[in-house]
Amino acid sequence: MWRDPEMSEKLHTVRAYDDALLDLDQSIEKMGALATKLLMDSLVALESRNNALARRVIEQDSQIDAIERHVDEAALGLIALRQPMAADLRHIAAAMKIAGAIERIGDLAKNIAKRSLEIDSDTGLQDKILSLRQMMGLVERQFGQVLKSYAMRDADLAESVWRQDAEIDNLYRLFFRALLTFMMEDARNIGPCAHLMFIAKNLERVGDHTTNIAEKVVFMVRGEAPSDERPRGTVGD
Amino acid sequence: MWRDPEMSEKLHTVRAYDDALLDLDQSIEKMGALATKLLMDSLVALESRNNALARRVIEQDSQIDAIERHVDEAALGLIALRQPMAADLRHIAAAMKIAGAIERIGDLAKNIAKRSLEIDSDTGLQDKILSLRQMMGLVERQFGQVLKSYAMRDADLAESVWRQDAEIDNLYRLFFRALLTFMMEDARNIGPCAHLMFIAKNLERVGDHTTNIAEKVVFMVRGEAPSDERPRGTVGD
Repeated sequence: MWRDPEMSEKLHTVRAYDDALLDLDQSIEKMGALATKLLMDSLVALESRNNALARRVIEQDSQIDAIERHVDEAALGLIALRQPMAADLRHIAAAMKIAGAIERIGDLAKNIAKRSLEIDSDTGLQDKILSLRQMMGLVERQFGQVLKSYAMRDADLAESVWRQDAEIDNLYRLFFRALLTFMMEDARNIGPCAHLMFIAKNLERVGDHTTNIAEKVVFMVRGEAPSDERPRGTVGD
Repeated sequence: MWRDPEMSEKLHTVRAYDDALLDLDQSIEKMGALATKLLMDSLVALESRNNALARRVIEQDSQIDAIERHVDEAALGLIALRQPMAADLRHIAAAMKIAGAIERIGDLAKNIAKRSLEIDSDTGLQDKILSLRQMMGLVERQFGQVLKSYAMRDADLAESVWRQDAEIDNLYRLFFRALLTFMMEDARNIGPCAHLMFIAKNLERVGDHTTNIAEKVVFMVRGEAPSDERPRGTVGD
Protein backbone atom coordinates (compact mmCIF):
# COMPACT_ATOMS: atom_id res chain seq x y z
CA MET A 1 0.00 0.00 0.00
CA TRP A 2 1.29 3.40 -0.93
CA ARG A 3 1.51 5.86 1.95
CA ASP A 4 1.88 9.58 1.72
CA PRO A 5 4.94 10.26 3.88
CA GLU A 6 3.77 13.76 4.72
CA MET A 7 0.32 12.55 5.79
CA SER A 8 1.92 9.78 7.81
CA GLU A 9 4.12 12.34 9.54
CA LYS A 10 1.07 14.47 10.32
CA LEU A 11 -0.88 11.51 11.68
CA HIS A 12 2.10 10.62 13.80
CA THR A 13 2.25 14.15 15.20
CA VAL A 14 -1.48 14.18 15.91
CA ARG A 15 -1.21 10.81 17.63
CA ALA A 16 1.72 12.01 19.79
CA TYR A 17 -0.25 15.11 20.72
CA ASP A 18 -3.33 13.11 21.69
CA ASP A 19 -1.15 10.70 23.64
CA ALA A 20 0.38 13.62 25.52
CA LEU A 21 -3.07 14.99 26.42
CA LEU A 22 -4.16 11.52 27.52
CA ASP A 23 -1.03 11.23 29.64
CA LEU A 24 -1.97 14.48 31.42
CA ASP A 25 -5.41 13.08 32.24
CA GLN A 26 -4.01 9.78 33.42
CA SER A 27 -1.55 11.60 35.65
CA ILE A 28 -4.38 13.63 37.19
CA GLU A 29 -6.34 10.42 37.73
CA LYS A 30 -3.36 8.77 39.41
CA MET A 31 -2.75 11.81 41.62
CA GLY A 32 -6.42 11.91 42.58
CA ALA A 33 -6.51 8.23 43.50
CA LEU A 34 -3.35 8.55 45.58
CA ALA A 35 -4.54 11.70 47.37
CA THR A 36 -7.86 9.98 48.18
CA LYS A 37 -5.99 6.99 49.58
CA LEU A 38 -3.70 9.18 51.72
CA LEU A 39 -6.68 11.14 53.08
CA MET A 40 -8.54 7.97 54.04
CA ASP A 41 -5.41 6.39 55.51
CA SER A 42 -4.61 9.51 57.54
CA LEU A 43 -8.01 9.31 59.23
CA VAL A 44 -7.73 5.55 59.83
CA ALA A 45 -4.29 6.17 61.37
CA LEU A 46 -5.83 8.79 63.65
CA GLU A 47 -8.81 6.63 64.60
CA SER A 48 -6.84 3.48 65.26
CA ARG A 49 -3.78 5.29 66.71
CA ASN A 50 -1.75 3.50 64.06
CA ASN A 51 1.57 5.37 63.92
CA ALA A 52 3.08 3.06 61.32
CA LEU A 53 0.23 3.90 58.94
CA ALA A 54 0.61 7.63 59.70
CA ARG A 55 4.29 7.42 58.79
CA ARG A 56 3.47 5.67 55.52
CA VAL A 57 1.08 8.49 54.61
CA ILE A 58 3.83 11.04 55.32
CA GLU A 59 6.27 9.13 53.11
CA GLN A 60 3.91 8.54 50.21
CA ASP A 61 2.99 12.20 49.80
CA SER A 62 6.23 12.70 47.83
CA GLN A 63 4.78 10.45 45.09
CA ILE A 64 2.02 13.01 44.55
CA ASP A 65 4.57 15.81 44.39
CA ALA A 66 6.51 13.88 41.75
CA ILE A 67 3.43 13.44 39.55
CA GLU A 68 2.67 17.16 39.88
CA ARG A 69 6.15 18.02 38.62
CA HIS A 70 5.60 15.63 35.72
CA VAL A 71 2.27 17.29 34.86
CA ASP A 72 3.84 20.77 34.96
CA GLU A 73 6.73 19.80 32.72
CA ALA A 74 4.53 17.90 30.29
CA ALA A 75 1.99 20.74 30.14
CA LEU A 76 4.58 23.49 29.54
CA GLY A 77 6.31 21.33 26.96
CA LEU A 78 3.01 20.72 25.15
CA ILE A 79 2.17 24.41 25.11
CA ALA A 80 5.60 25.41 23.83
CA LEU A 81 5.86 22.72 21.14
CA ARG A 82 2.26 22.42 19.93
CA GLN A 83 0.87 25.92 20.43
CA PRO A 84 -2.55 24.46 21.20
CA MET A 85 -5.79 26.20 20.23
CA ALA A 86 -8.22 27.65 22.76
CA ALA A 87 -10.00 24.50 23.98
CA ASP A 88 -6.79 22.46 24.29
CA LEU A 89 -4.98 25.34 25.96
CA ARG A 90 -7.80 25.54 28.53
CA HIS A 91 -7.49 21.79 29.02
CA ILE A 92 -3.72 21.92 29.58
CA ALA A 93 -3.90 24.98 31.84
CA ALA A 94 -6.67 23.31 33.85
CA ALA A 95 -4.56 20.16 34.23
CA MET A 96 -1.72 22.22 35.75
CA LYS A 97 -4.03 24.02 38.18
CA ILE A 98 -5.84 20.82 39.15
CA ALA A 99 -2.53 19.03 39.71
CA GLY A 100 -1.54 21.92 42.00
CA ALA A 101 -4.78 21.58 43.97
CA ILE A 102 -4.40 17.80 44.33
CA GLU A 103 -0.81 18.30 45.48
CA ARG A 104 -2.10 20.53 48.27
CA ILE A 105 -4.75 17.96 49.19
CA GLY A 106 -1.89 15.46 49.54
CA ASP A 107 -0.10 17.95 51.83
CA LEU A 108 -3.23 18.21 53.96
CA ALA A 109 -3.42 14.41 54.27
CA LYS A 110 0.24 14.40 55.30
CA ASN A 111 -0.48 17.09 57.85
CA ILE A 112 -3.32 15.04 59.36
CA ALA A 113 -0.94 12.08 59.63
CA LYS A 114 1.68 14.27 61.35
CA ARG A 115 -0.88 15.53 63.83
CA SER A 116 -2.04 11.99 64.47
CA LEU A 117 1.54 11.21 65.55
CA GLU A 118 1.56 14.23 67.87
CA ILE A 119 -1.66 13.40 69.70
CA ASP A 120 -0.32 11.27 72.52
CA SER A 121 -3.42 10.92 74.68
CA ASP A 122 -6.20 8.82 73.26
CA THR A 123 -8.50 9.00 76.24
CA GLY A 124 -11.98 9.96 75.20
CA LEU A 125 -10.84 10.82 71.71
CA GLN A 126 -12.99 8.21 69.96
CA ASP A 127 -16.35 9.94 70.31
CA LYS A 128 -14.89 13.25 69.14
CA ILE A 129 -13.33 11.67 66.08
CA LEU A 130 -16.74 10.39 64.94
CA SER A 131 -17.61 13.80 63.50
CA LEU A 132 -14.36 13.81 61.55
CA ARG A 133 -15.41 10.53 59.94
CA GLN A 134 -18.65 12.19 58.88
CA MET A 135 -16.75 15.18 57.40
CA MET A 136 -14.36 12.82 55.66
CA GLY A 137 -17.30 10.94 54.10
CA LEU A 138 -18.56 14.16 52.51
CA VAL A 139 -15.09 15.37 51.53
CA GLU A 140 -14.19 12.07 49.88
CA ARG A 141 -17.48 11.93 47.97
CA GLN A 142 -17.07 15.50 46.70
CA PHE A 143 -13.45 14.98 45.71
CA GLY A 144 -14.34 11.73 43.92
CA GLN A 145 -17.14 13.48 42.03
CA VAL A 146 -14.93 16.36 40.94
CA LEU A 147 -12.26 13.96 39.67
CA LYS A 148 -14.98 12.17 37.73
CA SER A 149 -16.24 15.49 36.33
CA TYR A 150 -12.73 16.21 35.01
CA ALA A 151 -12.34 12.77 33.48
CA MET A 152 -15.79 12.92 31.84
CA ARG A 153 -15.60 16.62 30.91
CA ASP A 154 -18.90 16.98 32.79
CA ALA A 155 -19.42 20.66 33.68
CA ASP A 156 -22.85 19.99 35.21
CA LEU A 157 -21.38 17.48 37.63
CA ALA A 158 -18.56 19.90 38.46
CA GLU A 159 -21.07 22.67 39.10
CA SER A 160 -23.06 20.46 41.46
CA VAL A 161 -19.85 19.70 43.42
CA TRP A 162 -19.11 23.42 43.47
CA ARG A 163 -22.53 24.13 45.01
CA GLN A 164 -22.28 21.48 47.70
CA ASP A 165 -19.18 22.80 49.47
CA ALA A 166 -21.44 24.58 51.97
CA GLU A 167 -22.33 21.19 53.51
CA ILE A 168 -18.70 20.56 54.43
CA ASP A 169 -18.37 24.11 55.77
CA ASN A 170 -21.44 23.62 57.96
CA LEU A 171 -20.17 20.34 59.41
CA TYR A 172 -16.83 22.01 60.09
CA ARG A 173 -18.48 24.84 62.01
CA LEU A 174 -20.57 22.43 64.08
CA PHE A 175 -17.53 20.34 64.91
CA PHE A 176 -15.43 23.41 65.74
CA ARG A 177 -18.07 24.54 68.26
CA ALA A 178 -18.32 21.05 69.75
CA LEU A 179 -14.55 20.98 70.22
CA LEU A 180 -14.63 24.33 72.02
CA THR A 181 -17.15 22.92 74.51
CA PHE A 182 -15.03 19.76 75.05
CA MET A 183 -12.10 22.05 75.84
CA MET A 184 -14.17 24.08 78.29
CA GLU A 185 -15.50 20.96 80.02
CA ASP A 186 -12.10 19.49 80.76
CA ALA A 187 -8.74 21.23 80.44
CA ARG A 188 -7.12 17.86 79.61
CA ASN A 189 -9.05 17.94 76.33
CA ILE A 190 -7.43 21.22 75.24
CA GLY A 191 -4.25 19.80 73.72
CA PRO A 192 -5.79 16.94 71.71
CA CYS A 193 -8.84 19.01 70.74
CA ALA A 194 -6.60 21.78 69.37
CA HIS A 195 -5.10 19.19 67.02
CA LEU A 196 -8.58 17.96 66.09
CA MET A 197 -9.55 21.55 65.24
CA PHE A 198 -6.68 21.77 62.77
CA ILE A 199 -7.51 18.35 61.35
CA ALA A 200 -11.12 19.40 60.82
CA LYS A 201 -9.85 22.63 59.25
CA ASN A 202 -7.68 20.55 56.93
CA LEU A 203 -10.72 18.59 55.76
CA GLU A 204 -12.58 21.82 55.24
CA ARG A 205 -9.65 23.03 53.12
CA VAL A 206 -9.75 19.82 51.08
CA GLY A 207 -13.35 20.84 50.38
CA ASP A 208 -12.13 24.30 49.28
CA HIS A 209 -9.55 22.81 46.92
CA THR A 210 -12.23 20.47 45.57
CA THR A 211 -14.39 23.51 44.87
CA ASN A 212 -11.50 25.22 43.10
CA ILE A 213 -11.00 22.13 40.94
CA ALA A 214 -14.71 22.20 40.12
CA GLU A 215 -14.35 25.80 38.93
CA LYS A 216 -11.44 24.83 36.68
CA VAL A 217 -13.45 21.96 35.20
CA VAL A 218 -16.41 24.24 34.46
CA PHE A 219 -14.09 26.78 32.81
CA MET A 220 -12.27 24.07 30.87
CA VAL A 221 -15.48 22.62 29.43
CA ARG A 222 -17.51 25.78 28.89
CA GLY A 223 -14.87 28.45 28.48
CA GLU A 224 -16.52 30.45 31.25
CA ALA A 225 -16.63 30.28 35.05
CA PRO A 226 -19.67 29.05 37.03
CA SER A 227 -22.39 31.62 36.73
CA ASP A 228 -23.25 32.80 40.23
CA GLU A 229 -21.55 33.27 43.56
CA ARG A 230 -20.81 30.11 45.45
CA PRO A 231 -22.76 29.73 48.68
CA ARG A 232 -20.19 30.02 51.46
CA GLY A 233 -20.24 30.20 55.19
CA THR A 234 -17.03 29.84 57.15
CA VAL A 235 -14.02 32.01 57.64
CA GLY A 236 -12.30 29.45 55.38
CA ASP A 237 -9.33 30.43 53.31
CA MET B 1 18.04 56.70 7.33
CA TRP B 2 17.42 53.46 5.54
CA ARG B 3 15.88 50.73 7.70
CA ASP B 4 15.71 47.06 6.91
CA PRO B 5 11.99 46.27 7.32
CA GLU B 6 12.70 42.64 8.21
CA MET B 7 15.21 43.61 10.90
CA SER B 8 12.80 46.22 12.18
CA GLU B 9 10.10 43.57 12.42
CA LYS B 10 12.46 41.29 14.33
CA LEU B 11 13.46 44.05 16.72
CA HIS B 12 9.82 44.80 17.25
CA THR B 13 9.10 41.16 18.09
CA VAL B 14 12.06 40.99 20.47
CA ARG B 15 10.96 44.22 22.13
CA ALA B 16 7.39 42.92 22.55
CA TYR B 17 8.75 39.70 24.04
CA ASP B 18 10.96 41.56 26.51
CA ASP B 19 8.07 43.86 27.39
CA ALA B 20 5.90 40.82 28.07
CA LEU B 21 8.52 39.31 30.38
CA LEU B 22 8.91 42.65 32.14
CA ASP B 23 5.14 42.84 32.54
CA LEU B 24 5.20 39.45 34.30
CA ASP B 25 7.83 40.70 36.74
CA GLN B 26 5.96 43.93 37.39
CA SER B 27 2.78 41.98 38.03
CA ILE B 28 4.58 39.78 40.56
CA GLU B 29 6.00 42.90 42.22
CA LYS B 30 2.56 44.48 42.41
CA MET B 31 1.02 41.30 43.82
CA GLY B 32 3.81 41.03 46.38
CA ALA B 33 3.39 44.62 47.53
CA LEU B 34 -0.37 44.21 47.83
CA ALA B 35 -0.10 40.91 49.73
CA THR B 36 2.39 42.49 52.14
CA LYS B 37 0.03 45.39 52.73
CA LEU B 38 -2.95 43.10 53.36
CA LEU B 39 -0.94 40.98 55.78
CA MET B 40 0.18 44.03 57.77
CA ASP B 41 -3.29 45.55 57.70
CA SER B 42 -4.89 42.30 58.86
CA LEU B 43 -2.71 42.30 61.96
CA VAL B 44 -3.31 46.00 62.65
CA ALA B 45 -7.05 45.33 62.33
CA LEU B 46 -6.73 42.53 64.86
CA GLU B 47 -4.59 44.53 67.28
CA SER B 48 -6.71 47.66 67.17
CA ARG B 49 -10.03 45.80 66.87
CA ASN B 50 -10.61 47.83 63.70
CA ASN B 51 -13.43 46.05 61.88
CA ALA B 52 -13.58 48.59 59.05
CA LEU B 53 -9.93 47.88 58.24
CA ALA B 54 -10.55 44.12 58.44
CA ARG B 55 -13.38 44.48 55.93
CA ARG B 56 -11.14 46.46 53.58
CA VAL B 57 -8.55 43.66 53.68
CA ILE B 58 -11.26 41.13 52.81
CA GLU B 59 -12.41 43.25 49.87
CA GLN B 60 -8.96 44.01 48.48
CA ASP B 61 -7.90 40.38 48.26
CA SER B 62 -9.80 40.12 44.97
CA GLN B 63 -7.27 42.53 43.42
CA ILE B 64 -4.54 39.97 44.05
CA ASP B 65 -6.67 37.24 42.48
CA ALA B 66 -7.16 39.41 39.40
CA ILE B 67 -3.42 39.94 38.96
CA GLU B 68 -2.83 36.20 39.31
CA ARG B 69 -5.29 35.52 36.51
CA HIS B 70 -3.49 38.11 34.39
CA VAL B 71 -0.11 36.45 35.08
CA ASP B 72 -1.47 33.01 34.16
CA GLU B 73 -2.99 34.22 30.90
CA ALA B 74 0.06 36.26 29.96
CA ALA B 75 2.41 33.39 30.79
CA LEU B 76 0.49 30.76 28.84
CA GLY B 77 0.15 33.16 25.91
CA LEU B 78 3.89 33.84 25.94
CA ILE B 79 4.72 30.15 26.01
CA ALA B 80 2.31 29.34 23.19
CA LEU B 81 3.32 32.24 20.92
CA ARG B 82 7.04 32.57 21.57
CA GLN B 83 8.10 29.01 22.36
CA PRO B 84 10.70 30.31 24.81
CA MET B 85 14.04 28.56 25.34
CA ALA B 86 15.01 26.86 28.59
CA ALA B 87 15.95 29.87 30.76
CA ASP B 88 12.95 31.96 29.67
CA LEU B 89 10.63 28.98 30.05
CA ARG B 90 11.89 28.53 33.62
CA HIS B 91 11.31 32.24 34.22
CA ILE B 92 7.74 32.13 32.91
CA ALA B 93 6.89 28.90 34.73
CA ALA B 94 8.36 30.36 37.95
CA ALA B 95 6.25 33.51 37.53
CA MET B 96 3.08 31.39 37.36
CA LYS B 97 4.01 29.35 40.42
CA ILE B 98 5.07 32.43 42.40
CA ALA B 99 1.86 34.24 41.47
CA GLY B 100 -0.04 31.20 42.78
CA ALA B 101 1.88 31.33 46.07
CA ILE B 102 1.30 35.06 46.51
CA GLU B 103 -2.39 34.56 45.79
CA ARG B 104 -2.52 32.10 48.66
CA ILE B 105 -0.68 34.53 50.91
CA GLY B 106 -3.42 37.05 50.07
CA ASP B 107 -6.01 34.44 51.05
CA LEU B 108 -4.27 33.94 54.38
CA ALA B 109 -4.32 37.70 55.05
CA LYS B 110 -8.02 37.71 54.21
CA ASN B 111 -8.56 34.80 56.58
CA ILE B 112 -6.79 36.67 59.40
CA ALA B 113 -9.07 39.65 58.76
CA LYS B 114 -12.16 37.39 58.86
CA ARG B 115 -11.05 35.88 62.14
CA SER B 116 -10.40 39.34 63.53
CA LEU B 117 -14.07 40.12 62.86
CA GLU B 118 -15.13 36.91 64.63
CA ILE B 119 -13.20 37.52 67.83
CA ASP B 120 -15.75 39.45 69.85
CA SER B 121 -14.07 39.56 73.23
CA ASP B 122 -10.98 41.73 73.46
CA THR B 123 -10.35 41.29 77.14
CA GLY B 124 -6.77 40.30 77.79
CA LEU B 125 -6.10 39.75 74.12
CA GLN B 126 -3.43 42.44 73.81
CA ASP B 127 -0.60 40.62 75.58
CA LYS B 128 -1.28 37.44 73.60
CA ILE B 129 -1.22 39.29 70.31
CA LEU B 130 2.29 40.60 71.01
CA SER B 131 3.80 37.28 69.90
CA LEU B 132 1.88 37.51 66.65
CA ARG B 133 3.50 40.88 66.00
CA GLN B 134 6.89 39.23 66.44
CA MET B 135 5.98 36.42 64.02
CA MET B 136 4.64 38.96 61.54
CA GLY B 137 7.93 40.87 61.71
CA LEU B 138 9.85 37.76 60.66
CA VAL B 139 7.28 36.71 58.06
CA GLU B 140 7.23 40.13 56.45
CA ARG B 141 11.02 40.35 56.34
CA GLN B 142 11.32 36.91 54.74
CA PHE B 143 8.58 37.59 52.21
CA GLY B 144 10.17 40.95 51.32
CA GLN B 145 13.55 39.28 50.84
CA VAL B 146 12.17 36.55 48.61
CA LEU B 147 10.37 39.09 46.42
CA LYS B 148 13.66 40.96 46.13
CA SER B 149 15.49 37.75 45.25
CA TYR B 150 13.02 37.21 42.39
CA ALA B 151 13.33 40.78 41.13
CA MET B 152 17.17 40.66 41.31
CA ARG B 153 17.49 37.04 40.11
CA ASP B 154 19.51 36.46 43.29
CA ALA B 155 19.62 32.72 44.01
CA ASP B 156 21.91 33.18 47.03
CA LEU B 157 19.43 35.53 48.68
CA ALA B 158 16.58 33.12 47.87
CA GLU B 159 18.54 30.26 49.39
CA SER B 160 19.15 32.22 52.58
CA VAL B 161 15.40 32.91 52.85
CA TRP B 162 14.78 29.22 52.26
CA ARG B 163 17.06 28.29 55.15
CA GLN B 164 15.53 30.75 57.60
CA ASP B 165 11.99 29.37 57.60
CA ALA B 166 12.83 27.34 60.72
CA GLU B 167 12.83 30.59 62.76
CA ILE B 168 9.19 31.23 61.91
CA ASP B 169 8.33 27.60 62.65
CA ASN B 170 9.97 27.85 66.05
CA LEU B 171 8.12 31.03 66.99
CA TYR B 172 4.89 29.39 65.87
CA ARG B 173 5.48 26.38 68.11
CA LEU B 174 6.30 28.57 71.12
CA PHE B 175 3.18 30.66 70.58
CA PHE B 176 1.00 27.59 70.07
CA ARG B 177 2.14 26.18 73.43
CA ALA B 178 1.60 29.53 75.15
CA LEU B 179 -1.94 29.66 73.77
CA LEU B 180 -2.65 26.17 75.12
CA THR B 181 -1.64 27.33 78.61
CA PHE B 182 -3.83 30.48 78.35
CA MET B 183 -6.72 28.19 77.47
CA MET B 184 -6.04 25.94 80.41
CA GLU B 185 -5.76 28.87 82.83
CA ASP B 186 -9.12 30.34 81.98
CA ALA B 187 -11.90 28.72 79.97
CA ARG B 188 -13.01 32.15 78.75
CA ASN B 189 -9.76 32.32 76.76
CA ILE B 190 -10.57 29.17 74.79
CA GLY B 191 -12.68 30.78 72.06
CA PRO B 192 -10.45 33.75 71.25
CA CYS B 193 -7.26 31.72 71.67
CA ALA B 194 -8.53 29.10 69.20
CA HIS B 195 -8.79 31.91 66.63
CA LEU B 196 -5.30 33.13 67.55
CA MET B 197 -3.98 29.59 66.98
CA PHE B 198 -5.34 29.63 63.45
CA ILE B 199 -3.99 33.14 62.87
CA ALA B 200 -0.53 32.05 64.02
CA LYS B 201 -0.84 28.99 61.79
CA ASN B 202 -1.71 31.29 58.89
CA LEU B 203 1.48 33.27 59.46
CA GLU B 204 3.45 30.04 59.61
CA ARG B 205 1.87 29.08 56.30
CA VAL B 206 2.87 32.43 54.80
CA GLY B 207 6.38 31.38 55.80
CA ASP B 208 5.90 28.05 53.98
CA HIS B 209 4.70 29.78 50.81
CA THR B 210 7.68 32.14 51.08
CA THR B 211 9.96 29.13 51.24
CA ASN B 212 8.27 27.63 48.18
CA ILE B 213 8.80 30.89 46.31
CA ALA B 214 12.46 30.80 47.33
CA GLU B 215 12.76 27.31 45.84
CA LYS B 216 11.24 28.51 42.57
CA VAL B 217 13.67 31.45 42.43
CA VAL B 218 16.65 29.17 43.00
CA PHE B 219 15.43 26.82 40.26
CA MET B 220 14.68 29.70 37.91
CA VAL B 221 18.18 31.19 38.27
CA ARG B 222 20.28 28.04 38.51
CA GLY B 223 18.19 25.46 36.69
CA GLU B 224 18.36 23.21 39.74
CA ALA B 225 16.66 23.07 43.12
CA PRO B 226 18.38 24.08 46.40
CA SER B 227 20.98 21.47 47.21
CA ASP B 228 20.11 20.02 50.60
CA GLU B 229 17.05 19.30 52.68
CA ARG B 230 15.45 22.34 54.22
CA PRO B 231 15.65 22.43 58.02
CA ARG B 232 12.07 22.02 59.22
CA GLY B 233 10.36 21.63 62.53
CA THR B 234 6.60 21.82 62.76
CA VAL B 235 3.77 19.67 61.62
CA GLY B 236 3.26 22.40 59.01
CA ASP B 237 1.66 21.62 55.71
